[in-house]
Amino acid sequence: VLKCEFAVRGAIVTHAMRLQEQLKQNPGSLPFDEIVVCNMGNPQSLGQQPITFFREVLALCGLPSFLDRSEAQKLFSADSIERARQILDQIPGRTTGGYSHTQGIKGLRETIAYGIEERDGFPSNANDIYLTDGASPGVHIMMQLLLRSELDGILCPIPHYPLYSASIALHGGTLVPYCLDEATGWGLEISEIKSQLEAARSKGVTVRALVVINPGNPTGQVLSEENQQQIVELCKKEGIVLLADEVYQENVYVPDKKFQSFKKIARSMGYQEKDIPLVSFQAVSEGYYGECEKRGGYMEVTGFSADIAEQIYKVASINSCNSNITGQILTSLVMSPPKVGDESYEVYSAEKKGILSSLARRALTLEDAFNSLEGVTCNKVEGAMYLFPRIHLPQKAIKAAESEHIAPDAFYAFRLLKETGIAVIPGTGFGQVPGTWHIRCTILLQETKIPAIVKRISDFHKKFMDEFRG
Amino acid sequence: VLKCEFAVRGAIVTHAMRLQEQLKQNPGSLPFDEIVVCNMGNPQSLGQQPITFFREVLALCGLPSFLDRSEAQKLFSADSIERARQILDQIPGRTTGGYSHTQGIKGLRETIAYGIEERDGFPSNANDIYLTDGASPGVHIMMQLLLRSELDGILCPIPHYPLYSASIALHGGTLVPYCLDEATGWGLEISEIKSQLEAARSKGVTVRALVVINPGNPTGQVLSEENQQQIVELCKKEGIVLLADEVYQENVYVPDKKFQSFKKIARSMGYQEKDIPLVSFQAVSEGYYGECEKRGGYMEVTGFSADIAEQIYKVASINSCNSNITGQILTSLVMSPPKVGDESYEVYSAEKKGILSSLARRALTLEDAFNSLEGVTCNKVEGAMYLFPRIHLPQKAIKAAESEHIAPDAFYAFRLLKETGIAVIPGTGFGQVPGTWHIRCTILLQETKIPAIVKRISDFHKKFMDEFRG
Repeated sequence: VLKCEFAVRGAIVTHAMRLQEQLKQNPGSLPFDEIVVCNMGNPQSLGQQPITFFREVLALCGLPSFLDRSEAQKLFSADSIERARQILDQIPGRTTGGYSHTQGIKGLRETIAYGIEERDGFPSNANDIYLTDGASPGVHIMMQLLLRSELDGILCPIPHYPLYSASIALHGGTLVPYCLDEATGWGLEISEIKSQLEAARSKGVTVRALVVINPGNPTGQVLSEENQQQIVELCKKEGIVLLADEVYQENVYVPDKKFQSFKKIARSMGYQEKDIPLVSFQAVSEGYYGECEKRGGYMEVTGFSADIAEQIYKVASINSCNSNITGQILTSLVMSPPKVGDESYEVYSAEKKGILSSLARRALTLEDAFNSLEGVTCNKVEGAMYLFPRIHLPQKAIKAAESEHIAPDAFYAFRLLKETGIAVIPGTGFGQVPGTWHIRCTILLQETKIPAIVKRISDFHKKFMDEFRG
Repeated sequence: VLKCEFAVRGAIVTHAMRLQEQLKQNPGSLPFDEIVVCNMGNPQSLGQQPITFFREVLALCGLPSFLDRSEAQKLFSADSIERARQILDQIPGRTTGGYSHTQGIKGLRETIAYGIEERDGFPSNANDIYLTDGASPGVHIMMQLLLRSELDGILCPIPHYPLYSASIALHGGTLVPYCLDEATGWGLEISEIKSQLEAARSKGVTVRALVVINPGNPTGQVLSEENQQQIVELCKKEGIVLLADEVYQENVYVPDKKFQSFKKIARSMGYQEKDIPLVSFQAVSEGYYGECEKRGGYMEVTGFSADIAEQIYKVASINSCNSNITGQILTSLVMSPPKVGDESYEVYSAEKKGILSSLARRALTLEDAFNSLEGVTCNKVEGAMYLFPRIHLPQKAIKAAESEHIAPDAFYAFRLLKETGIAVIPGTGFGQVPGTWHIRCTILLQETKIPAIVKRISDFHKKFMDEFRG
């Protein structure tokens, strides 16, 4: 277990927490007065406000006896009261305090299936949906089932959010890497996947699934429809499971791209349920609402034979994987938010638009800032919540990192943290093409703070380059 | 993985769900008109009302903008508003939507430590507390650390709630069983533990920890102070970790017994932190409040060396084990409920007393009912939520079970389910002394329903015995 270091909670984060403690105990002892958290997709901790409708419904579901009280009708919107009532009616015993079905409360899964149908224009079935505590439990269940030994492999993008590498390691399988092409905006090249697939097979590895993260984490690209079709075709032809990480489906910032689920793409191509095994992961920690610690999410599992579907159910039961009730309810809300005509609709849509348009502005400002630095190139943030700029580090900096026995990008990130208080994650934690170095930085800082932070990064970078430039 | 069947979600439960579905599709097709759920500690699904104060605070924490509104002051109690304000002040960013520290929000852990101090009269430290999603993640973390190979063993009571056997199997260790003595009210005999410890050692197994469940699940006994002292002494002498499952600490029904934590016992004996490694597990799914699907809980970890403590922290970080925010807040509330003088105190204490005294009455009624059946003996339910009566099955029933290739108690439980709709768990799922047969039945049925259910059980049992008696 100890082998699988989890980058997003790794050494940099531990050190940042230590510095934060030091600032508290001994203010003025460091060259900055606060730690700037750019290492984690944690928007509400950085001041983002929650979506009112979601919070009202969650509060009311816990207080069924309040629903008919006149004070409640003054305090809460009519549609949040109505929605809470509907949800309670769907729960056996009308209580949020009981254990539910292994897959989660059936009525909530029906709401989610309906939301998926609305999104895709193709049918979705509540029986295919497993409500989970965030996306991780679903990923672990699938890995547990797919990986029988180290001779079973999973194709994963490089770079990628390390949940997948950690889960593959934990379940004793082999990670088969395919590299995203930074030069074409983190393009997913089918030829690269095919050649890695063949290389793995020639080593005796049975490739069982392909992981695709769309929009990308940490890379921020949104796949084109054509690219998605190629991926579906490949999985169909090679007989491998498509594991689609679609947790950032609501976070798209560029007008020329839009999110389309792999299920929609597959069905649009005429592939039916029986033609292709496909799992889609969704989580409430992501999205514009960013309800991280509510731990909600689902996986939609389609295209498996009845006996494998039964195995999935069995593993989910053993893991007692059913998620906390707040997360279950919230997942149903994000997949079925207020509609035009509902009392909350205007507030809801203003809140949503406010958050998404602000994220788009922040992404743009930070992209420009990174691109203006010497030796730094940063692809467009089309979606998700992160920038992943490449740092062309001078040879002298690489040597200095070697003498400290850390990766060059970790060396850069530690320097940045120690001198400015800004915490980012080194690219090493996500995997990268050998000899290239990156950092992952969220786009979640409060807008008013961004100019000052950009200046700190620029000043640091200049000083760093002055120190190490040839 | 597939080896570890989890009894409480096993074949009986699956079959009960199938029958429930059948009743819905085709009412009147079975000899009963509802499934009576006695297989799971799930009180609110059976009509138990939540504790108002807990629910008010949870609702308000999600709606910080409501705290100052006059309508809210009319709807919510003053101390729940005050408490929500305090809790929000403890959370960085004053939001329930962010990720927290790996161990959970520090301020909430401080409240819990304070609650433990109040309970025990000995100090507790927030740094020793890990907030977890129920008790299971804590148990898994400890097993992951304690079990290096199948040559590492954990002493577990027989019978016991199968979380422990499942977790030991999952982490590749060896379960070293010690039998509880049914004849002395499920007494925990030190001589039995010692002889099993030595037997394990003679087979080359290093025994690393002792699991004690107090109050017992499924056995319902509450340990005496003297017995707890003997256990502490044994762990100290043998150098093994004490894993104390104390999730039913609030559920004690008999006036001559009271719950005392193992930490209190150890400290009262003069053993300090350094003298004995001790982990205490607590969960919000249990207790009088029974907030099952909120998934909250903690483990308090004391007496480990600094490097092992660091390993625990590391494994917790890798597992991203920090629990959902609702569970974290609720855990702080149950460990620090309203006090005399608070506006909510009277309602709170009436609700708590109402639930606990009703549980005590139900336990007594059901004990008497089981004891009045031919060939059935049932120990006193001193605590927790279950009866575990022994069924002295006739030889003919045992033969019939053999011919169906199932355990005799599973045979009995399936018959009970099919003929009456009452779902209980066969003792086999918890382990039992060879040749003895039990069922586990919760004490959570609504009081008004109990007489009719008791009659159904009695009629079934009589018919069963008539069919199989000698």
